Amino acid sequence: MNLIVDVGNTYVKFAVYKRNKLECKTSFELPEFKKQYKNLKKKYPTIKRAIVSSVGRLSKKQLETIEEDLEVLELSHRLKVPFKNSYKTPKTLGVDRIALVSASVDQFPDNNVLIIDAGSCITYDFITNENEYLGGAISPGIRLRYKALNNLTANLPLLETSQPKSIIGNSTEESIHSGVISGVLKEIDGLIEYYKENHQDLTVILTGGDANFLSNQLKNSIFANSNFLLEGLNFLLDYNTK
Amino acid sequence: MNLIVDVGNTYVKFAVYKRNKLECKTSFELPEFKKQYKNLKKKYPTIKRAIVSSVGRLSKKQLETIEEDLEVLELSHRLKVPFKNSYKTPKTLGVDRIALVSASVDQFPDNNVLIIDAGSCITYDFITNENEYLGGAISPGIRLRYKALNNLTANLPLLETSQPKSIIGNSTEESIHSGVISGVLKEIDGLIEYYKENHQDLTVILTGGDANFLSNQLKNSIFANSNFLLEGLNFLLDYNTK
Repeated sequence: MNLIVDVGNTYVKFAVYKRNKLECKTSFELPEFKKQYKNLKKKYPTIKRAIVSSVGRLSKKQLETIEEDLEVLELSHRLKVPFKNSYKTPKTLGVDRIALVSASVDQFPDNNVLIIDAGSCITYDFITNENEYLGGAISPGIRLRYKALNNLTANLPLLETSQPKSIIGNSTEESIHSGVISGVLKEIDGLIEYYKENHQDLTVILTGGDANFLSNQLKNSIFANSNFLLEGLNFLLDYNTK
Repeated sequence: MNLIVDVGNTYVKFAVYKRNKLECKTSFELPEFKKQYKNLKKKYPTIKRAIVSSVGRLSKKQLETIEEDLEVLELSHRLKVPFKNSYKTPKTLGVDRIALVSASVDQFPDNNVLIIDAGSCITYDFITNENEYLGGAISPGIRLRYKALNNLTANLPLLETSQPKSIIGNSTEESIHSGVISGVLKEIDGLIEYYKENHQDLTVILTGGDANFLSNQLKNSIFANSNFLLEGLNFLLDYNTK
């Protein structure tokens, strides 16, 4: 049994895989790390190995909590990966993106693939049908846009994420919902169309915390898979320990 | 002669109009307000009236600097406007948007008009060919997106605005440039297309600090006019004092 630990900008996710089957998944805020791990270990005492992907602020002490029990692999740019990395600055490639690209090569080895990870940030990653990773883009995610409109301007309120009633917002709140949500949808559809025009037989994977909210509102057809990052991490753990 | 004072989130703009002709335009940061006004008044002693539009943090003391010399009209939702306002929360409609809509009705009275103001925020405003203002959208502007990626995440650098070399960024910096700039372009083009599909004979005005940077990169044809807000303010000053 494998434990997958995914530390994002806001939340931590634990997932337990038995071979390729997801047994359990849980999400919590960083300060609860130790408590959540102890609970999980009680429920799944046969977990032997773990992989940790952190783009956030996991402390050494928190990491030691699991290193005491398990064989732990930390995801970094030094791990063995199943693709050719043509990123010019591999050391600054977010480790979450390494995991996503690995999942893509594992599951769609013969396709041109665009992975869109809609979380705190929206990342776009492109992998050719020859398993070469070319790079992509990073833009602010839905919550980040709401927060930026409030934090970084003089007068706008901080709103909870909500579906706009219309693209033409008829109040300040509706205008913000439209600007954030319709803006993200138009950005994603526009970028998918660029890739489709330039790369035949494109497969598009939509993942991340906002994947379900966005998936049925896009014009283009995509595969929504909110476990894609976890599947990539589980693949990499096996790929680096076998 | 009219003095137009436009206080945005970051910069203040002074413009001097003689009837409808722009005589002079200058831009500076808020703390320089008094000094800049004194210089301008020396150069144009015949200025008699001013209109002030502020979405930012202009202080009472700064306002008094010009009220000592001039007849000053403060732009607010109580002014007489040349359009039917169907915004449900007119008191929270940014005063800059009132000025933009007024310019549109003055200059394109018989058209369906979408105004895109690309500054600190990107605002979208729609006015029908019957001069009815319906509302629109507000999303984060280019600088706000760069700042949000840095301020509100753990690991991303703050970059200067720069044209991405490719939509597929092959480094973290290039990925950020692509995510911000290509993201904004796809959002704007996608929203223009929505309005075009739903409203015949659409005129699109692109204005704001980033209008020149964006204008020749859009797929859709637009009128770029970086003075549109100033022209609206100048119109409103005459419209409310005649």
